[in-house]
Amino acid sequence: MKQVSVLKFGGSSVGTIEKIKDISIYLKRRVENKEKLIVVVSAMGKTTDDLLKQVEKITDNPDVRELDTLLAIGEQNTISLMAISLNDMGVRARSLTGIQAGIRTFGQHTKSRIADIDADFLNDQLDEFDILVVAGFQGYNENLEITTLGRGGSDTSAVALAAAIGAPCEIYTDVTGVFGTDPRIYKAARQLSQVSYEEMLELSALGAGVLETRCVEIAKNYNVPLYLGKTLSDTKGTWIMANTDLLEKKVVTGVALDRDILHVTLACSDIGTNFVEELFNQLDRFSVNIDMISQIVSGDDMNVSFTCKDTDRNFLNQILDSLNDKFSGIKYSVRTDCAKVSIVGSGMRDVSGVAARAFRILCSNGINFYQVTTSEISISYAIDKDLSEKAVILLCKEFNI
Amino acid sequence: MKQVSVLKFGGSSVGTIEKIKDISIYLKRRVENKEKLIVVVSAMGKTTDDLLKQVEKITDNPDVRELDTLLAIGEQNTISLMAISLNDMGVRARSLTGIQAGIRTFGQHTKSRIADIDADFLNDQLDEFDILVVAGFQGYNENLEITTLGRGGSDTSAVALAAAIGAPCEIYTDVTGVFGTDPRIYKAARQLSQVSYEEMLELSALGAGVLETRCVEIAKNYNVPLYLGKTLSDTKGTWIMANTDLLEKKVVTGVALDRDILHVTLACSDIGTNFVEELFNQLDRFSVNIDMISQIVSGDDMNVSFTCKDTDRNFLNQILDSLNDKFSGIKYSVRTDCAKVSIVGSGMRDVSGVAARAFRILCSNGINFYQVTTSEISISYAIDKDLSEKAVILLCKEFNI
Repeated sequence: MKQVSVLKFGGSSVGTIEKIKDISIYLKRRVENKEKLIVVVSAMGKTTDDLLKQVEKITDNPDVRELDTLLAIGEQNTISLMAISLNDMGVRARSLTGIQAGIRTFGQHTKSRIADIDADFLNDQLDEFDILVVAGFQGYNENLEITTLGRGGSDTSAVALAAAIGAPCEIYTDVTGVFGTDPRIYKAARQLSQVSYEEMLELSALGAGVLETRCVEIAKNYNVPLYLGKTLSDTKGTWIMANTDLLEKKVVTGVALDRDILHVTLACSDIGTNFVEELFNQLDRFSVNIDMISQIVSGDDMNVSFTCKDTDRNFLNQILDSLNDKFSGIKYSVRTDCAKVSIVGSGMRDVSGVAARAFRILCSNGINFYQVTTSEISISYAIDKDLSEKAVILLCKEFNI
Repeated sequence: MKQVSVLKFGGSSVGTIEKIKDISIYLKRRVENKEKLIVVVSAMGKTTDDLLKQVEKITDNPDVRELDTLLAIGEQNTISLMAISLNDMGVRARSLTGIQAGIRTFGQHTKSRIADIDADFLNDQLDEFDILVVAGFQGYNENLEITTLGRGGSDTSAVALAAAIGAPCEIYTDVTGVFGTDPRIYKAARQLSQVSYEEMLELSALGAGVLETRCVEIAKNYNVPLYLGKTLSDTKGTWIMANTDLLEKKVVTGVALDRDILHVTLACSDIGTNFVEELFNQLDRFSVNIDMISQIVSGDDMNVSFTCKDTDRNFLNQILDSLNDKFSGIKYSVRTDCAKVSIVGSGMRDVSGVAARAFRILCSNGINFYQVTTSEISISYAIDKDLSEKAVILLCKEFNI
């Protein structure tokens, strides 16, 4: 039985016909090396932007079903060209759109989620062909309508296909791998050769931004070994895998920075009300994701602090106005000059004193924090945005990132 | 029950976003007038050419399955934009790709033929929506592969859809309708308001070239009233319909000219051989379509004349060489400076003397012909290419085209 792998190439990796041909040569070598491949591709370069420009000339508010049908042609363009290129080189390859690959989705157009994938069909196709070139980002729903998966959709397609057929997934992009922190902030940052799903999730969610959270979550849930590397580069990338499979567990793997947050503090003097319940109902109603939640009750007074994305600012203001109307005696403050710095590492579970070391290094350098939250494998600090880069550098040095 | 019509707009009619919006406004008016519409569209302007240019950078000989997958995105682009435009104007519209519309095909990729269409599904969709925007030129085969229909494919899609649901079909293009002859040759030529399927077939096949033969054939077989007119023009076009439904039957409806023919004459002096059988076998083997066949036997000598398309010249030469090897005593001549002029009219059946009038007008003007063939509704003459336009003008004047 041949080794099957899923490979994914992003839009800039397939941005020109030349690049598609170069990738085809690379794929042919792997097939000659007795591999079977599912290759997931995005739309070429700026294709999606060009399609959206067509729409802008018609309306600001397009029908989302039709928008999905439109955007899906970007990937269909890439799969057919890549399959033409591979067949021209004598590789037995076949292209598959989302419908053809059996990627069934549910949920709303433009942000659908994958329900299931027909693994039997794909395995049959892999008997007949050496490479299946699958359109990323797209699927279909129960009405045979074309759907798209939203942000990070092609990565999600790739990981879901890998999960369906039980193969590892290699994601090729412009970066060489996952770094312990953003090298633009801390130049000495080293690339990680391995990182656990959990650590990657914290790093993604905390703004490291190489892979979308949902794609790492699927990999974690189905135990798909995930590789992140640079397209057609000899430089080794990063493997993302189960914690138990890591060869070496670091105490602190990375330091993440999220600059686009708001820090909100609410104080309510009448604890007898259903104030907190109403707050969470409202946040849910507007789909505002909150993070770093702390609640402190002191006598009849209650304080709630949380952070949320800066992009939700308008929703947040509506929620606060609404709460103000319903409840008396509420005070609130919203900090916009705020950032979140997090230290992440699976090893924290077993090693004490990480929090103390981090506290000490921040305090001794005059960096105050408004809030601290901890998870099993991370500690996050809400601090002044002005000081956030300095904090990242200090923490990276302290923990040898 | 509302009137249902199928409308088809060609590539230049939907070549820009502005044109798509203008057609949407027109379609909205028709919906407000209590109509339900199936609108078939081609790829926008030069889209198909652009896609083929991508392929040229990879190979001269692309895998045809993948070529179909590539080319199909042209129409998918148009349907989604038109559906976005219609929905934006408040029209209940939905786009359907070939697969979604249930246009099942058979035969080879890049020149598939329609096997059947799911009329029940379309009727259900028409209950829910006022306009279905269907991708022309494309369908799918039994393996759920995307197929395309080759030349005149979008017209064929439209007529087949009309046949499936029992509706008339309106085809909108750059021309205002069907003329009795090419107005570039005979400026006084008048547009026909009505023409029979049979006449249209003769005019198409004989090079009048407005509609592909296959599309008129489907219309004839399923008795689909076919309208040919100019996009968004108030000028009345031409209805193509059953002979029995014509209000007024003309003796001669049109004069057609085909300049791209070869005229071949073969003489064989040994009639005992299976020479003619072998000739037709060879023509069949190379898929050379022949026309204007005459065979004359005189004693032991036999003469066969026929015409074929100029584009088949290479195949023809191979066939003639092969016959020369197999049979002795064959003489052949191939005229390349030849054209075919035909007069077409349903009324010929009932009116005698048409052939005589045509012979007389040609002879008295010094135009000799190498061959004449007749069908029930047409007479064709093979003549010198140099004199062909003169012949067309003379015949048009004679028969008041």
